[in-house]
Amino acid sequence: MPLWQIHHPAGVYSEADKRDFAGDITANYTAVGLPAFYVVVLFHEITASNLYVGGQPADDAVRIVVSHLARHLDDPERRKQMTERLDATLHPYTRDRGLHWEFHVDESPRDLWMIAGLWPPGPGTDAEKAWAAANKPLPY
Amino acid sequence: MPLWQIHHPAGVYSEADKRDFAGDITANYTAVGLPAFYVVVLFHEITASNLYVGGQPADDAVRIVVSHLARHLDDPERRKQMTERLDATLHPYTRDRGLHWEFHVDESPRDLWMIAGLWPPGPGTDAEKAWAAANKPLPY
Amino acid sequence: MPLWQIHHPAGVYSEADKRDFAGDITANYTAVGLPAFYVVVLFHEITASNLYVGGQPADDAVRIVVSHLARHLDDPERRKQMTERLDATLHPYTRDRGLHWEFHVDESPRDLWMIAGLWPPGPGTDAEKAWAAANKPLPY
Repeated sequence: MPLWQIHHPAGVYSEADKRDFAGDITANYTAVGLPAFYVVVLFHEITASNLYVGGQPADDAVRIVVSHLARHLDDPERRKQMTERLDATLHPYTRDRGLHWEFHVDESPRDLWMIAGLWPPGPGTDAEKAWAAANKPLPY
Repeated sequence: MPLWQIHHPAGVYSEADKRDFAGDITANYTAVGLPAFYVVVLFHEITASNLYVGGQPADDAVRIVVSHLARHLDDPERRKQMTERLDATLHPYTRDRGLHWEFHVDESPRDLWMIAGLWPPGPGTDAEKAWAAANKPLPY
Repeated sequence: MPLWQIHHPAGVYSEADKRDFAGDITANYTAVGLPAFYVVVLFHEITASNLYVGGQPADDAVRIVVSHLARHLDDPERRKQMTERLDATLHPYTRDRGLHWEFHVDESPRDLWMIAGLWPPGPGTDAEKAWAAANKPLPY
């Protein structure tokens, strides 16, 4: 967590674009102390005959699904700010290229999540800081 | 939102079928006033060696995941009716072709959802009606 | 339900591996009385240029998303045990092959789920037992 799944038309992103895009997404989370390796980004290329917006085949639309953990952010204002910050991250890869874009964030339970056989340490704990510093899971 | 992801065996749908299927799905939502462009349908072809039902490779099963917004429908009876209506939409593309099918709807938070850099207007508002009439997002 | 989506690097699993993996996953659920056909496993091969962990392309990471039904298990200790049991199922296909792995389980509402045009019978009912014994949906 977080997991980003980016459904995009064929050919709109080069390999360098994808790497930049994934890096920009990741920076949103490392800025608040999360280990970088928590952030997984999957790019799924999809042809117009497999992507429909409003019932019409679309070759200019990017649809993104983000998975976060439930109850991480409860304050409505902070949720709004976070969502707008994530949206801004998308602009160079969508709006600025003339692509339509839509995203939503789902929230799944923290207690049903494991990495490399370990329970991820609680937010803000020393163990989480150690995972972030090492950028890998460590027994704790 | 809504987002439909349809995992289907290779070759079961022609391009015309997919367009019809996406159109039939979309009609469920425009009938209740949602803008057509809210409805995104993704078709994912999957081979039998990548799709297992009960541990067995399957070449005759369609698995669909739908994402809706949480708390849109609270009444149990209306939720039941909606789900059965969605199921009926699937019949020409599953049951009537001898395919096994299963779907579920997940519900994600409305306040973590944006389209084209905008917050989608509230249900039933004038702004939502304007988006539906224009079939595109408009500043409001 | 349950639905498992396994995003994995190209070439790490043979067809026999996938079948074994899907079978091991399925056994977790049949052991507690669920019909085998409820368990759907999708394998999605993904190249390193489409999978980023911490902003870096990754060819050794497996990311798994599991969908369960909400409120099936409420007790924190049983949720923990279940999650650790699922993790153990993954070890032969991840840890023991030198692959990084992460999974999370999302929970969606039971009342928005249908199989083959039917409402799945309630947990522990005679109808559910009949579905499990026949390994297919039956009118009830």
